[in-house]
Amino acid sequence: MTLKVYVDRLSEPSRAIVLFCKVNDIDFEEVTIDLFKGQHKTPEYKEINPMGQVPAIDDGRIKLFESHAILSYLACAFPRVPDHWYPADLVSRAKINSILDWHHSNLRFGGISLVRNTIAPALGLPMNQEAANQGEKLLCSSLSTIESVWLKGDTKFLLGNDQPSIADLSLICQVMQLELVDDKVRERIMEPHKKISQWVENFKAATSPHFEEVHELLYKAKAKFHPH
Amino acid sequence: MTLKVYVDRLSEPSRAIVLFCKVNDIDFEEVTIDLFKGQHKTPEYKEINPMGQVPAIDDGRIKLFESHAILSYLACAFPRVPDHWYPADLVSRAKINSILDWHHSNLRFGGISLVRNTIAPALGLPMNQEAANQGEKLLCSSLSTIESVWLKGDTKFLLGNDQPSIADLSLICQVMQLELVDDKVRERIMEPHKKISQWVENFKAATSPHFEEVHELLYKAKAKFHPH
Repeated sequence: MTLKVYVDRLSEPSRAIVLFCKVNDIDFEEVTIDLFKGQHKTPEYKEINPMGQVPAIDDGRIKLFESHAILSYLACAFPRVPDHWYPADLVSRAKINSILDWHHSNLRFGGISLVRNTIAPALGLPMNQEAANQGEKLLCSSLSTIESVWLKGDTKFLLGNDQPSIADLSLICQVMQLELVDDKVRERIMEPHKKISQWVENFKAATSPHFEEVHELLYKAKAKFHPH
Repeated sequence: MTLKVYVDRLSEPSRAIVLFCKVNDIDFEEVTIDLFKGQHKTPEYKEINPMGQVPAIDDGRIKLFESHAILSYLACAFPRVPDHWYPADLVSRAKINSILDWHHSNLRFGGISLVRNTIAPALGLPMNQEAANQGEKLLCSSLSTIESVWLKGDTKFLLGNDQPSIADLSLICQVMQLELVDDKVRERIMEPHKKISQWVENFKAATSPHFEEVHELLYKAKAKFHPH
């Protein structure tokens, strides 16, 4: 069967999966699970992903959730995917896994706390300013860590080479989610992190034109949340 | 060089690494990084792990942090490790990765929030009852999820077979951390989760006598925190 990819492109790990498939010319069927309509909580979808979250995939062999596990699975299951995305070399693979594990409790956790709590009023939900502040603090320290640990020197990507891996993909989709917060807040966060901005540009160049297409819905949502 | 393993056995992911090495007869040197003495924050240790956390390893080829990445690396780097810990089969491996990714934001996050905040007074730190309550709620829902998703039916371990994987190892070391909270709280949490208790017993039996030895320090700490 054709690989089915269950996503909502407003979710950062969903975009990572769609972008990976497009960049690597993987044949897939995109099934939109609309988070605002609660489609991720239906009994039908829970047959695919019992956790009731996006993204998830189903290729007939496995129903799989958690975006990092999906990315490493797809990189291995489709032999035509270029090696740089998830190198067969054990040491490189361990470094990628380590960055992705770190991501959960740092960049992603901070980013989600900030974004959810700052866009809450636009969704008619209560705003939790303390959670937003804590999220911003963790997000900023995570960005500093990325710059000082993985992007030190003149490296283009996290593994210290000229081509991106699934770690770059996952973390950059998270950074892009900042499009949803107010421009002033995003500028305050990004301004001290020139290396992060350059890294995102490097990744855009490496994955164009798919990057722009996959992020279109995010830009539209930004315009809706922040009409000028 | 001999594999160096930097750990504090009071930390649940540290115990997972030590136990994995012992059960698989991997030759290693255990270097204790005393968290109470702040040894994880020294410049010397940050040369090993820039994140200033335990566990970390150094085998001369790679300095690696994040316990899940360490476990999968060790399972692959030592060919004598039995396949069931981290099967070469792509689908089994993806399932393990998915459980481990899920673990970060669910069982581990809930467990850490509960344990840190309930033992705080014994460490002379302020108690955050709200964080402890939220941690307990997430921990309990995570235990229910494990029972209904991975331990359904008569399976002994998470992958649905008779031998444990690194996913069982990591999650069970987290469950064991509940030894540090008050007996009444632990019983309240464990009582409705008979399948979890049986799963821990299965794992103990599969990894005896190393399991008991690696957890000795935890039992000693429990006696210190809760003298009778």
